[in-house]
Amino acid sequence: MAIKRNNALSVTRREDFSKWYQEVITEAELAENSSIRGCMVIKPYGFAIWENMQNILDNKFKELGHHNCYFPLFIPINLFEKEAEHIAGFAKEMAIVTHHRLEQKDGKLVPAASLEVPLAIRPTSELIIGESMANWMKSYRDLPILINQWCNVVRWEMRTRMFLRTTEFLWQEGHTAHETKKEAEYETKTMHEVYRWFIQDILKMHAIPGKKPEHEKFPGAIDTFTIESMMQDGKSLQAATSHYLGQNFAKAVNMQFQARDGSLQFAHTTSWGISTRIVGGLIMSHSDDDGLNLPSSIAPYHIVIIPLFKGEKTQQEILEYCKKIKTSLPKNIRAFIDIKDVPPQDKKWAYIKKGVPFVCEIGSKEVIENTIFFTKRLSNLERFNLKLEEFITSIDELLEQHNKILEERVLQTYKEKSITASSFEELKEFFVEHDFGFVTANWAGSKNNLELLDNLSVTIRCIPLLQNNSPGNCILTGEKTTMEAIFAKSY
Amino acid sequence: MAIKRNNALSVTRREDFSKWYQEVITEAELAENSSIRGCMVIKPYGFAIWENMQNILDNKFKELGHHNCYFPLFIPINLFEKEAEHIAGFAKEMAIVTHHRLEQKDGKLVPAASLEVPLAIRPTSELIIGESMANWMKSYRDLPILINQWCNVVRWEMRTRMFLRTTEFLWQEGHTAHETKKEAEYETKTMHEVYRWFIQDILKMHAIPGKKPEHEKFPGAIDTFTIESMMQDGKSLQAATSHYLGQNFAKAVNMQFQARDGSLQFAHTTSWGISTRIVGGLIMSHSDDDGLNLPSSIAPYHIVIIPLFKGEKTQQEILEYCKKIKTSLPKNIRAFIDIKDVPPQDKKWAYIKKGVPFVCEIGSKEVIENTIFFTKRLSNLERFNLKLEEFITSIDELLEQHNKILEERVLQTYKEKSITASSFEELKEFFVEHDFGFVTANWAGSKNNLELLDNLSVTIRCIPLLQNNSPGNCILTGEKTTMEAIFAKSY
Repeated sequence: MAIKRNNALSVTRREDFSKWYQEVITEAELAENSSIRGCMVIKPYGFAIWENMQNILDNKFKELGHHNCYFPLFIPINLFEKEAEHIAGFAKEMAIVTHHRLEQKDGKLVPAASLEVPLAIRPTSELIIGESMANWMKSYRDLPILINQWCNVVRWEMRTRMFLRTTEFLWQEGHTAHETKKEAEYETKTMHEVYRWFIQDILKMHAIPGKKPEHEKFPGAIDTFTIESMMQDGKSLQAATSHYLGQNFAKAVNMQFQARDGSLQFAHTTSWGISTRIVGGLIMSHSDDDGLNLPSSIAPYHIVIIPLFKGEKTQQEILEYCKKIKTSLPKNIRAFIDIKDVPPQDKKWAYIKKGVPFVCEIGSKEVIENTIFFTKRLSNLERFNLKLEEFITSIDELLEQHNKILEERVLQTYKEKSITASSFEELKEFFVEHDFGFVTANWAGSKNNLELLDNLSVTIRCIPLLQNNSPGNCILTGEKTTMEAIFAKSY
Repeated sequence: MAIKRNNALSVTRREDFSKWYQEVITEAELAENSSIRGCMVIKPYGFAIWENMQNILDNKFKELGHHNCYFPLFIPINLFEKEAEHIAGFAKEMAIVTHHRLEQKDGKLVPAASLEVPLAIRPTSELIIGESMANWMKSYRDLPILINQWCNVVRWEMRTRMFLRTTEFLWQEGHTAHETKKEAEYETKTMHEVYRWFIQDILKMHAIPGKKPEHEKFPGAIDTFTIESMMQDGKSLQAATSHYLGQNFAKAVNMQFQARDGSLQFAHTTSWGISTRIVGGLIMSHSDDDGLNLPSSIAPYHIVIIPLFKGEKTQQEILEYCKKIKTSLPKNIRAFIDIKDVPPQDKKWAYIKKGVPFVCEIGSKEVIENTIFFTKRLSNLERFNLKLEEFITSIDELLEQHNKILEERVLQTYKEKSITASSFEELKEFFVEHDFGFVTANWAGSKNNLELLDNLSVTIRCIPLLQNNSPGNCILTGEKTTMEAIFAKSY
C-alpha cells in the first residue's frame, strides 16, 4: 500500500531545483564547501561513490590496454606559449605558483622566494604529458602509447557549484599517441563509446553521444566527441569528452617518430576525460524529493540493516540474525549493519536520503518469523515483508528492478522534455515557454547566426552520432541540410 | 649451474650506490625526471608498483574502519598562523599560488589577477582537514572520525632525488579524531603497526619500529612513531610515520565536542602517512647489480612468458602453448605474454632489470616436451626446466622461495652493517671507518651534546619499541639509563 507522507527533503525539485540539488548533497553527506573559494570537501559517502566509479572505469581502461602513470601537477607557463588555441582556452582560469616559501613579516605570513618561471597548476595535461611521450617514442614500434592518470586539476572558475563546477576537481585524463590518423580517430571513438557505456549502461543516466560543433571543441583539438546527458530539469550536462587532437600537440612538443618508410613523422594524439562533475550529473539524473538515488553499480551499500532492539528477543539474538542476513547474501551484494547509538527512525531516514536501495529494519518479529522487513527506496518508500530465504534468492532481481526504474524514469523525462523543431521560431517558442528541454533540429554546421541562440541562452550541444538523415532547412541559416543537432540550455 | 657473466647494469652498488640507484630506476622504466625542477614522471611500470601498494594499504585501512575522502589542494596561508610549530616546520618549503590568470604582455605570458589571500599548496593537511572535522563533531557520539586521503602534496625541497625526495609526491594521509587521549594513542600505535606489517611482512624490507626523539618529531605533534629501514648501503630511510597530535591541532581549529559529562572538550587527533618515497626504499632494499627485485605482493608481473618463434612448431602452436601456461596458472598469479616485435634476448634482459621473478622462454622444444624453461631472478639468473604441470603446482612455493631470499638478504645486510656501541668513541670509530650502518647505544633522551652527532652526519633515528633494557651510560651525556636508541646516517 502506498503511504501518503511528507518528503524527506525540505524543498522539492519543482519548487527550486538548484536549492533541492544542494539539499540532496547535504542530506546524503556527499560533500560540503570548504573555506577555500570554489573548492569542496568530498565526504566519505560521496567519495565512496567516486571510488566505485573509478574502479569500473579503471578496469575498462586497463582491459583496453591503457596504463596508469603520474605526471607533475605543475606546468611552466612558457610551455603554454607553444599551443596558441590551447592557451587562449585556458589562460583566464589558471592558478599560478609564483613563490616557494613563506616568511614572517610584521607578524604576518607572506610569500617569499619568487620563481624564475612561474608554474601553472595543471588545468589539463596535454602539453606536459606530450613532452614525456615525445621522449618515449623513437620508432613506430613504440606506438601506440596508451596512458591514463587519475589526478586533481584546477580551473579558476568564477561561478562554482558543488561537483558541477569547482575550482579544483578530480578526474582521469587519458592520453594516447598513434602512428596514423586512422588509429587515433579509432581510439577517440572507442573511448567515446566507453563513456557512453559507462554513463548510460552503468550509471543509468540519459546519454546522447555526439560530436561537438567547431566552436565548442576542446582548445587545440581537431574533433571533440561528447556525451550530452539530460538532467531532470531538462538542461544538458556535458558528461565526458574524447578529443582527436590531430598532430597539433605533437607539433607543439616535437613528438616525432621514425615511420615504417624511414621518414620522421609527427604522432597523432588523443585525450579523453571524465571528472567528479559526473557525480553532480548522477545526482541531477536520479535523485527525487526524498534525496539521492543510486544505480546498484556504484551504490556504496545495496542494503543497510538496522537492528531494532525491542520485543522478546535479546540484543544479541537480534544482532546474530542481522549478521546471518549479511553473510547469507551473495558476495556481490554490499550490505552494512548499522549499530550506531542513534534512534532507528533517524537512521532509516538518513539512509533513504543517501539512496540506499533497500533499508531493512530487523527486530524480534523478524527473528522469530525468519523474515526481512524492508523499505524499497524506489517504490514510493513502500515497505515489504519477505521470508529471509526468498529475499536472499531474489536480491539480484530486486536490484535489477531498482535499476530498471531508474532507467525508465530517465527515459520518461527525456520523452517529456524533448521535441523536434523544423524552424527557429518553433525552437524559440519552446524555450520561451518551457525554459528547459532538448530540441532536435536541422543545422548546417556554419557559425552563422549563432547569436540567435545566445539570446535564448541556448547552445548547440552536439551533432548526435545517431542521425535520422531527414532533409530540411538549417534553422539558423535556411541552408538545405540533412544534418541534425541537439539544442539545449546547459550546465 | 651458475653462469659467470656480466651484470645487466653498467654500474654496481659497490662502485657508486647513487649512480646505481638511478640506473635501476631508468632501466626498469620506473620513473624519469620532468622538465619541472624536482618533479618526476612516474612511468607505467613504476606506477603499477605504487598501485599495488595502494590496494594493499587501502584495504587494510578500510578493514580498520577508515573512510576515504578528498580535501582541497589549497590552504589559505593565514590558516598556518594558527599552529606555530607546524608553520615553523613547513614555511620554508611551500609552493604559493598568488595569481589566478595568465595574460599576454609583450608577447610573453605573465601572471595576472592576484589573490587577496595567497594559497599554499598542501604540504600536509592537518589544518584543512581539522577545519572540516571541527564541523563534523557535535558530541562524543560522532567520534571517532577515521578518515584517509590519497593525494599529491608539495614540499619545495632544495635537493631532490627520484622517489626519495621530490618537490611533488603522492601519499596517503590518515587523519583521525578521538574522544580520549587513550583512544588516540591506541590509533597512533595501531597505524604504526600497520606500517610495520606493510614494510616488513608485505614488502620484505628491513624495519625497526620506534619512536622519534623530541627534536625529530613532526612539527606540532606530541609523539611521532617511525619505521626506520636499513637500505643496502647501511643508511636509514624513514619509511612511514604515525603521529599522536594531542589537542594541539584541535585547539588551532577549535575542534570541540560535547563530552559524556556534558562539558565541551577538544578532540585528540592523530595523523599518519606513507608516500611514494617507499618505492625508493623498496629499490634500495632489494635491487642488485642486475636491476630491480620485487616481492611477489606488489610485483606487477610474477611471470613473463616470452615466445621464441623458431624450430619445428608454428608461431600459432607456440602462442597457443604460451596461453595454455597463462590460463593454467592459479588466479593469484600475474602472468603476461610479451608478443612485441622485439628480439627475445632484449625482452628477457628488460624483464630481468624490471625484477620479474620468473622469466619464461617458450619455443618449439617446450611445446613438444610440455615443459617450461625459465630464469629465476633471484638465483643468480640460473635457468631451470620443469614439466608444465610441476611448474603450475609449485608456482606458489617458487614465489615463497623468492620472497624468502629477499627477506634473508635484507636480514644479512642488517647483520653485517649494525653494531652495538657502549661509548661515543666506539660509535665515532664505526662511522669514521665505515661511513654506514646502524649503531644501537644507550641514550638518555636529552638534547645535550647532539652536536657531537652533527659532525659525523649521524642522527638518532628512533628509540626502538623493542628495548633490551640493558643499563648503561648515555653515550652523549654519560647519564645512567637503560634506554637504547638507533644512530645512523639517513636519506
